[in-house]
Amino acid sequence: MSNNLLKGKKGIIFGALNDMSIAWKVAERAHEEGAEFVLTNAPIAMRMGEINKLAESCGNALVIPADATDMDDLSNLFDKATEHLGGKIDFILHSIGMSPNVRKGKHYTETNYDFYHKTLDISAMSLHRVLKTAYEKDAVNDWGSVVALSYIAAQRVFPDYNDMADAKSLLESITRSFGYHYGIRNKVRINTISQSPTMTTAGSGVKGFDEFVAYAEDMSPLGNAGSIECANYVVSMFSDLTKYVTMQNLFHDGGYSFTGVSEKVIEKFKQ
Amino acid sequence: MSNNLLKGKKGIIFGALNDMSIAWKVAERAHEEGAEFVLTNAPIAMRMGEINKLAESCGNALVIPADATDMDDLSNLFDKATEHLGGKIDFILHSIGMSPNVRKGKHYTETNYDFYHKTLDISAMSLHRVLKTAYEKDAVNDWGSVVALSYIAAQRVFPDYNDMADAKSLLESITRSFGYHYGIRNKVRINTISQSPTMTTAGSGVKGFDEFVAYAEDMSPLGNAGSIECANYVVSMFSDLTKYVTMQNLFHDGGYSFTGVSEKVIEKFKQ
Amino acid sequence: MSNNLLKGKKGIIFGALNDMSIAWKVAERAHEEGAEFVLTNAPIAMRMGEINKLAESCGNALVIPADATDMDDLSNLFDKATEHLGGKIDFILHSIGMSPNVRKGKHYTETNYDFYHKTLDISAMSLHRVLKTAYEKDAVNDWGSVVALSYIAAQRVFPDYNDMADAKSLLESITRSFGYHYGIRNKVRINTISQSPTMTTAGSGVKGFDEFVAYAEDMSPLGNAGSIECANYVVSMFSDLTKYVTMQNLFHDGGYSFTGVSEKVIEKFKQ
Amino acid sequence: MSNNLLKGKKGIIFGALNDMSIAWKVAERAHEEGAEFVLTNAPIAMRMGEINKLAESCGNALVIPADATDMDDLSNLFDKATEHLGGKIDFILHSIGMSPNVRKGKHYTETNYDFYHKTLDISAMSLHRVLKTAYEKDAVNDWGSVVALSYIAAQRVFPDYNDMADAKSLLESITRSFGYHYGIRNKVRINTISQSPTMTTAGSGVKGFDEFVAYAEDMSPLGNAGSIECANYVVSMFSDLTKYVTMQNLFHDGGYSFTGVSEKVIEKFKQ
Repeated sequence: MSNNLLKGKKGIIFGALNDMSIAWKVAERAHEEGAEFVLTNAPIAMRMGEINKLAESCGNALVIPADATDMDDLSNLFDKATEHLGGKIDFILHSIGMSPNVRKGKHYTETNYDFYHKTLDISAMSLHRVLKTAYEKDAVNDWGSVVALSYIAAQRVFPDYNDMADAKSLLESITRSFGYHYGIRNKVRINTISQSPTMTTAGSGVKGFDEFVAYAEDMSPLGNAGSIECANYVVSMFSDLTKYVTMQNLFHDGGYSFTGVSEKVIEKFKQ
Repeated sequence: MSNNLLKGKKGIIFGALNDMSIAWKVAERAHEEGAEFVLTNAPIAMRMGEINKLAESCGNALVIPADATDMDDLSNLFDKATEHLGGKIDFILHSIGMSPNVRKGKHYTETNYDFYHKTLDISAMSLHRVLKTAYEKDAVNDWGSVVALSYIAAQRVFPDYNDMADAKSLLESITRSFGYHYGIRNKVRINTISQSPTMTTAGSGVKGFDEFVAYAEDMSPLGNAGSIECANYVVSMFSDLTKYVTMQNLFHDGGYSFTGVSEKVIEKFKQ
Repeated sequence: MSNNLLKGKKGIIFGALNDMSIAWKVAERAHEEGAEFVLTNAPIAMRMGEINKLAESCGNALVIPADATDMDDLSNLFDKATEHLGGKIDFILHSIGMSPNVRKGKHYTETNYDFYHKTLDISAMSLHRVLKTAYEKDAVNDWGSVVALSYIAAQRVFPDYNDMADAKSLLESITRSFGYHYGIRNKVRINTISQSPTMTTAGSGVKGFDEFVAYAEDMSPLGNAGSIECANYVVSMFSDLTKYVTMQNLFHDGGYSFTGVSEKVIEKFKQ
Repeated sequence: MSNNLLKGKKGIIFGALNDMSIAWKVAERAHEEGAEFVLTNAPIAMRMGEINKLAESCGNALVIPADATDMDDLSNLFDKATEHLGGKIDFILHSIGMSPNVRKGKHYTETNYDFYHKTLDISAMSLHRVLKTAYEKDAVNDWGSVVALSYIAAQRVFPDYNDMADAKSLLESITRSFGYHYGIRNKVRINTISQSPTMTTAGSGVKGFDEFVAYAEDMSPLGNAGSIECANYVVSMFSDLTKYVTMQNLFHDGGYSFTGVSEKVIEKFKQ
């Protein structure tokens, strides 16, 4: 399906690791909708992934490795991307997150603070770094659109989500703060999409993730949102249909966020 | 512009009074995007308005008068609409609001309670009435989309907005409550869009509205969202790009909702 | 225990039905803390209840029947209460709620709209009526404090809570709206306390309430808050310790409101 | 005034710099209410401050310097404090915040990332460090209460507040996350109080602070909350009146947070 919603638009997509990644689906859908873009990921993630396959299927998109916590890498990325795409860009997808504390199985109450700083830097401050780089280079067209992927742990506690919850809160705050300044200067809008738990490579690393996905499925009137639907929603946010939406956190979760309890969940509490 | 986003979709649009109405713009944009629909408004509002002109420009859409607080009118509307459109519908726009207390200049602390009940019935319970009618007749296709227009007075006090603020809170609660049940039965999703103050016929009746629009303009990083942009956003919510968004209140306001204060506003507090 | 927190303060307490009522506990605690007050309830509720027993144990408090949806009753109540207490009052507890739809077992999608209007009038507009009466008579001292009891169904869907959810949303909106105006004129502050599900006579009428209480207990890090603890919290809100808190909805729920899921609940989703 | 609300309770108070500090007022009020406590601040802040004067007026409270980003300092603080106070503690006040970016006048879009990490570490992660230290040492009695001071910039953008906004978002997330775990293990409750802008030494360092205080004053139905009132509110949160309140962010701001616009502010937009 294509509606040419992104025809003539150019962008940078962070975080496509493999075909389970939301960023992967966004790339595929953005391509279908007529966009041109550069793909990027951390050098270390690219060795594990299959990003070149994706690039091929998206009209031989250019792939530029960049560590999103490294200002030199980001500078190089934006220079090369705008050169390759022939001008300023219109959209950015930020789908980046990693917690060394989660990886090493450190309980939230036993956090290693060096890891904690890394969690915040990779998963939240990286958005600030991307935006600062773009802002300084004036690399985004007026009315450009930036989307970062978030999770409802930014608002409520999901114990196993650990310090990623704090990182997502920080990410959403950066979205608002930078959204204000970039909105005033260039009408660039910045939003987060808070997605249902999704069986990506990142998601599947979280302890107890299967039960959690089942719980969220039962709690959501429409069921959990999948990654293709998420990609569609991202496309709508990149398009001109949503030009006055900015500094928002948008739940894409089948109604989970405003369901206090569902009949299916309460069923489990009957004898 | 058209991307055929609503090709093959059918709907009912409530509340197009004249070409300042958001519902009017939604009708025009939905038509451009390939939708077929029925237009409706209260009989009394239709006498004042120019809805037939709109109907003509939208491929001779059928116009069916209906008082949205009258269950017989609504029953008739849904029966005729589905008959005329040849089947179940896919979207509904609810753009209905009126406060007799505002009209009569009753201060919030001096409310007339008969008027207050009317405000709630017209501006909020009417959504429940529309949904109940549709639900009983099973008149909406699976994954159909309902949008009602709201305002941030549902969350924060804007003194001149009076009992319409309470009506919008109720409207958003109905959106969540009915969204849960309709989501479970038919995957129908129900959302409100909380729009910038807009110079419609309704808006312009509110005391101090000009100052208020100026204030909101200065407070919003992107400026106030206009009605055409709102229509675009509604189109995205009716489309298949947003299938897992439900029970949400979506701010379409240029960033107003998450701006605590802007530099332009604070400027007024400098001597 | 007494800390004389309400010494010299006078008030009106709505809604003490029997010793399971939160209002009953508030009366007992307010009496211990040195307050004088008038007790009131709907005439019909008083025939069922044991309010005179409570009045006796609270220093022979005066009991004045009043239907909170009847402006004459409320006028009489405030006149007699201020006369009896020898002056303006300092606090009001609003603990009033009833849904004919819930009582008659009407599903939310099958609402009777006359009932629905009654639900809103009794459970939410009654707060407006009480405040309007007080405001017109200038019956509340500066820095007086009004507390109404709410429930998190105002924010998220709990299917069996039915139209009471919408009523609580409306109640919280009235709290903000009237809180603004009364705050400006008399520094009177108005807040809601959003309490854990509580085994009161009202609560126990809700379908599936036992399972629901068990679920909330498992979801809350501190467990469900009881009615005595709620009374303590109300006392703190009536005291001078909280003078600048107004127009808020305050969760008193052992952390339920910000817990996305607890380990105990997720346990039920393991095979 | 004293109601013996904190009689027999022991605690640690972070952040009393001088008599403009909220922490200073909290110490004075906690002393009046019968609490015993240890005062602490960063060594560097103590050289600038007059904390010993405060200690004297609070029954010769012990002063223990500690850098709240240094785990050894915190370990020493908790060991000495519990030894000196003769057992576990009941309350902690966290009133700590500092942004090198604000101090150096770096605009939000020009952030220095080393500074940014410091802002987060000092102003937000320090709460995690304090709680982790207490948790590991099991140094807090069951039903103990922790309060951290926050600001509404955690929810909405106030441009001059810079990266402190992001720090406050992180602080509130840590409050929720640790509140969950500490609540389950020891019923310890953790909340933030989101206070009106206050003319403290910290506040007065922010650019444009005077205009901002004037704006907030005009926007708040009750006017801005002062530091003595804040101290009273903290006392209520340390007391047994609020035992089931946890993981919350509590606005103490005269109604600012839920006022969309006040008549006084809109007045400035009239010609």
